[in-house]
Amino acid sequence: MSQFNDVSVDLKANVYFDGQVTSRGVTFPDGSRKTLGLMLPGDYEFGTSERELMEITAGHLEVQLPGEEVQTIKGGDNFKVPANASFKVKVLEVTDYCCSYFAD
Amino acid sequence: MSQFNDVSVDLKANVYFDGQVTSRGVTFPDGSRKTLGLMLPGDYEFGTSERELMEITAGHLEVQLPGEEVQTIKGGDNFKVPANASFKVKVLEVTDYCCSYFAD
Repeated sequence: MSQFNDVSVDLKANVYFDGQVTSRGVTFPDGSRKTLGLMLPGDYEFGTSERELMEITAGHLEVQLPGEEVQTIKGGDNFKVPANASFKVKVLEVTDYCCSYFAD
Repeated sequence: MSQFNDVSVDLKANVYFDGQVTSRGVTFPDGSRKTLGLMLPGDYEFGTSERELMEITAGHLEVQLPGEEVQTIKGGDNFKVPANASFKVKVLEVTDYCCSYFAD
């Protein structure tokens, strides 16, 4: 799938770490939301409120999830992050991602 | 207007200048396209094939269009670029933009 169809896309981007990480909200007909974003090379720590699925469209990064070994992630891979958790990311190449949120 | 509704959004981002400038395509029901993008601080030169309208959602930049004085542009402002032209941009603050294309 190369596009999301019949969605609403936010005009205003979310900007983090002085623009090194940015994303834009997408709302689906069923009311669910995803963000489509980009991470530039660097080290970042993120926090979640809801459970998240990070699907990597392109790029190369290392991810350290709570209590887990560091994982190497590339385009086509994905990783899940529990709710109310923080996780560390080392981005090695510009990374294009889609984040889905699950309010369990 | 804070969102574009009933559109298709590209999963894969457009990445320029090592990620300092990125955008994502949005396709409207009438087939027209826009890109929603971000520019990080820096100096860039762009080329157009079609006539473009650049609407700045947030940010601060200086623009030099062909044969014109340098303009200072901020959030809420816009500028037009003719087809088949190149223009220089000096981005002073992270800039969030929407680009529309016109095949005259």
